[in-house]
Amino acid sequence: MPQGKPEVVPDDGLTTRQRRNRPVFAVHTGVMKGKSTAAFGMALRAWNQGWSVGVFQFVKSAKWRVGEESAFRALGRLHDETGEGGPVEWHKMGEGWSWSRKAGTDEDHAANAREGWAEIKRRLAAETHGFYVLDEFTYPLKWGWIEVADVVEAITNRPGRQHVVITGRDAPAELIEAADLVTEMTKIKHPMDAGQKGQRGIEW
Amino acid sequence: MPQGKPEVVPDDGLTTRQRRNRPVFAVHTGVMKGKSTAAFGMALRAWNQGWSVGVFQFVKSAKWRVGEESAFRALGRLHDETGEGGPVEWHKMGEGWSWSRKAGTDEDHAANAREGWAEIKRRLAAETHGFYVLDEFTYPLKWGWIEVADVVEAITNRPGRQHVVITGRDAPAELIEAADLVTEMTKIKHPMDAGQKGQRGIEW
Repeated sequence: MPQGKPEVVPDDGLTTRQRRNRPVFAVHTGVMKGKSTAAFGMALRAWNQGWSVGVFQFVKSAKWRVGEESAFRALGRLHDETGEGGPVEWHKMGEGWSWSRKAGTDEDHAANAREGWAEIKRRLAAETHGFYVLDEFTYPLKWGWIEVADVVEAITNRPGRQHVVITGRDAPAELIEAADLVTEMTKIKHPMDAGQKGQRGIEW
Repeated sequence: MPQGKPEVVPDDGLTTRQRRNRPVFAVHTGVMKGKSTAAFGMALRAWNQGWSVGVFQFVKSAKWRVGEESAFRALGRLHDETGEGGPVEWHKMGEGWSWSRKAGTDEDHAANAREGWAEIKRRLAAETHGFYVLDEFTYPLKWGWIEVADVVEAITNRPGRQHVVITGRDAPAELIEAADLVTEMTKIKHPMDAGQKGQRGIEW
């Protein structure tokens, strides 16, 4: 239910309204695929509020998430044409970040990932978006390409009302500690266990 | 990654392509809210494939999921106007099913739920949609309003290529047994634990 009672009422000097309206920092982790899917579902609600949606994909495959990307690009065009919902930006590291001069064939993934994060930090400081999806962002953290402490600092101290969702397996403990909402997607059963491979429209 | 190798290759007489293209029956259960959100994320991919998307919400609140509903209605209009993506139907029990003559004020929830399921069964038999979201459908099952065996039978033997996702807590064991893909959304941390109530654009 959308408006459950909180389990505790903290003594933090905030009114219920102030507390309610704090922007959310969420982490979707675990081994199952609902992580990104649920983040894009949340982005639908953000779009409907008229918030600017910024998606940043820290993955390689051009095929990956093509369904969500097309749908969100369609929603973004709808906004541009009719004013309905919010604007949408969708950026992919795999093809080279759209704001970057560098070609997408650059093989220095660590530098690419750091460049992506530097841009997100600039946008957080500038309050560019109302809702950020940092898709598969746990991997550059896990591999040591980007410092977790820097991410925690920038997100914790972000100005204004900006919601941030980070997805990916093996979220670092410091990230989970800093987050307001952490969901773990757990596999109970998957078609691949029964020998079924991924299929178009379902897996991407 | 979208195309991982299956862990086992079953001796079921199907080619890899046949096996890959079997329609999926998925269940999203557990205590966290990503269940429906991830189902709607999947529906984005289905829309992008041009499949007919049918959403059936077995919940009362008019506010619940309003963000996703608006976004999908926008995508459905986009399809109707430009041919992009697939058509979208969104039906809610809480206001009285749109195909029903009965008023939404009818207080017999069990009868309403059964009427919803009867319509879904008719649509499965007629191959009306390519992708079904039966949102919060575990509750009428849990409360004994609808027979689990009937649901399992209708979904297991559905004709053609129709994907079905059921969401809700406490999915019955028979449903999990019948499903191809079962994800449990587990709470690690939620803002309500820290006294923060749900907020617009994030929770609905």
